[in-house]
Amino acid sequence: MKLKLKPWINSLPGYVAGRTIEEIKKEFKLNEVHKMASNENILGPCSQVRKYIKENLDDINYYPDSDAAAVREAIASKCGIEAGNIIMGNGTDQIIEMICDCFIMEGDNIVNADPNFIIYEKAALKCGGQAVKVALKKEDFSQDGQKIVKAVNDRTRIVFLASPHNPTGTIICEKDLVFILQNIPDDVLIVIDEAYYEYLEDSFRPDTIKYIKEYPNLVSLRTFSKIYGLAGLRIGYGIADKNIIDALNKIRLPFNTSLIAQKAAATAIENDWYIERIRDSINEEKDKFYRFLDSAKIEYIKSYANFILIKTGSKSAGIVKGLLESGFIVRPGANLGFNEYIRVTVSVPDVNEKFIKKFSEIYNYFYGKK
Amino acid sequence: MKLKLKPWINSLPGYVAGRTIEEIKKEFKLNEVHKMASNENILGPCSQVRKYIKENLDDINYYPDSDAAAVREAIASKCGIEAGNIIMGNGTDQIIEMICDCFIMEGDNIVNADPNFIIYEKAALKCGGQAVKVALKKEDFSQDGQKIVKAVNDRTRIVFLASPHNPTGTIICEKDLVFILQNIPDDVLIVIDEAYYEYLEDSFRPDTIKYIKEYPNLVSLRTFSKIYGLAGLRIGYGIADKNIIDALNKIRLPFNTSLIAQKAAATAIENDWYIERIRDSINEEKDKFYRFLDSAKIEYIKSYANFILIKTGSKSAGIVKGLLESGFIVRPGANLGFNEYIRVTVSVPDVNEKFIKKFSEIYNYFYGKK
Repeated sequence: MKLKLKPWINSLPGYVAGRTIEEIKKEFKLNEVHKMASNENILGPCSQVRKYIKENLDDINYYPDSDAAAVREAIASKCGIEAGNIIMGNGTDQIIEMICDCFIMEGDNIVNADPNFIIYEKAALKCGGQAVKVALKKEDFSQDGQKIVKAVNDRTRIVFLASPHNPTGTIICEKDLVFILQNIPDDVLIVIDEAYYEYLEDSFRPDTIKYIKEYPNLVSLRTFSKIYGLAGLRIGYGIADKNIIDALNKIRLPFNTSLIAQKAAATAIENDWYIERIRDSINEEKDKFYRFLDSAKIEYIKSYANFILIKTGSKSAGIVKGLLESGFIVRPGANLGFNEYIRVTVSVPDVNEKFIKKFSEIYNYFYGKK
Repeated sequence: MKLKLKPWINSLPGYVAGRTIEEIKKEFKLNEVHKMASNENILGPCSQVRKYIKENLDDINYYPDSDAAAVREAIASKCGIEAGNIIMGNGTDQIIEMICDCFIMEGDNIVNADPNFIIYEKAALKCGGQAVKVALKKEDFSQDGQKIVKAVNDRTRIVFLASPHNPTGTIICEKDLVFILQNIPDDVLIVIDEAYYEYLEDSFRPDTIKYIKEYPNLVSLRTFSKIYGLAGLRIGYGIADKNIIDALNKIRLPFNTSLIAQKAAATAIENDWYIERIRDSINEEKDKFYRFLDSAKIEYIKSYANFILIKTGSKSAGIVKGLLESGFIVRPGANLGFNEYIRVTVSVPDVNEKFIKKFSEIYNYFYGKK
């Protein structure tokens, strides 16, 4: 190509999406396929959301509200903050991109854990920046606050944290969060990705909004793609000091969230009782997985989200393939920086039971019955 | 703010969105408000699209197909090109942004007409680039191919053309397009925004696909927001040589178009007969406007799209306000680089008639009966 592509674009890391149910049905000639690969809420949104969409399709020929005022007001009221502290994105990945677009110049860097959700690094690299990677703690796979603080240098513009962290499901405890907030210079942005925040038990939920009010360099990212069950509609949000939101709005495309996504998200918030049910169900189901894994003496990482990273050893690729052929899509750890693991989304009770049975068979096939 | 925002972000030009019907109803206490400000297709999509959405909401909790394979295949087959030549965007404005993100470094520039759709310039400035602006031809408000070619220098990475052009509705005739293609160096990207392409009469439609096959530096942008009546869902596409599409895919966020938008767009293409009807109706209605404007001796620019730029003179702001108070939202030319004009979207017959009547009254109020 004769065109002058920015020199670093060709070497950007790829993102490997979870495979779709339709794809796998076709490839393996299956009637029933369960996706346990992308941490969706398998039960979907509360019934009010689909009903509302069905009854409100009259105006899809009009551009959405560029300010997304109704849904931002709903979030603001839920969170006890002003609508001016909130920005909507076409998924939080778009907000991650906007943040890097605003703050990362050639030669700047971001600091984040290794491994991590790949989009932080991709968004920084896209702007000509670098990603400084800090290994997870060996003992519990959590993010290492001390080492993250030490990794910040004079070209660091953003620190990306995730709690719960993807793909491990570990959290940053409140003490570590405070340590990070207190020890990172106030000209560095601290972004905490809380995509799985609503899956936390109350006692593990930090009052992030309180810290945002205290630290004008802190951003929280939350989403309707996970517990709210709206991944297909693409809508997430960022919460931060108004100065940061104003800067992001300077580069936000005017119609970045769709009319249906805005309406669905506002309806989902009106029915917030529903997500507590989902959380409770997932926590019960996780225990089912843990009991099985413990009894089978298979290692795993205890998760605060709706997925579990399971150690499947050197035969992981074969196990992933065996599961696919049996109609279960899981995420190979190799795509996530965990070669000897698979990441499994916790599904609904009957699917989880079927999965555990099939996984157990396949695992035993590869490693011999214990 | 202590955070180190890129120095040029704060001075980016703003985009002023058309005001929403709900906003105006509230502000002026009106029951009936007609939006004629954002060039939407007021009749909306064909009925099959809404029906399909209503019946296919089961999987909105799953991430969309990252490759948008079905809709890309449908477009490819319609256009006589490969799916590998197509990229989907959350509106074509997102593709404009991706193109600049890939090709514009600090100090680079884009060349485009003045005035023009502001997003070209915004996307270039976001990357630290500049926008070289070439005045429209005085005689007919069309883009000046000769001057555009002359404006290209060694830091030019992209030339943005629009046909039909927004906000004038003028086109680049095929002779001028060929002149531009032949005279701009092949290491410069030529992007032709064809958002209103389907409104053109057959004899005015260039075979852009043929030129894309001949010129590997040409990109066409098309959208489902205009004649297809899906502005609220956010989906558009780019067509180009595979090398360009591959580069854009390197930075595309994996789930940039929603599941519903992908499905709606594919359904809209299946029912392509519908848009010809819309085009014919709009062309008849434009004639109605022209007859009125001619008889009232009011100047306007003859448009190849579904909007008309009408010269309303020094009292334009008052006329816009008068129309708003009467329930008609139009776009002030002042927001579009045409101070003494308003841009009016051609609507359905009865709304157009009401509009013409009200506009005539207000115009006469300000300028006296002719």
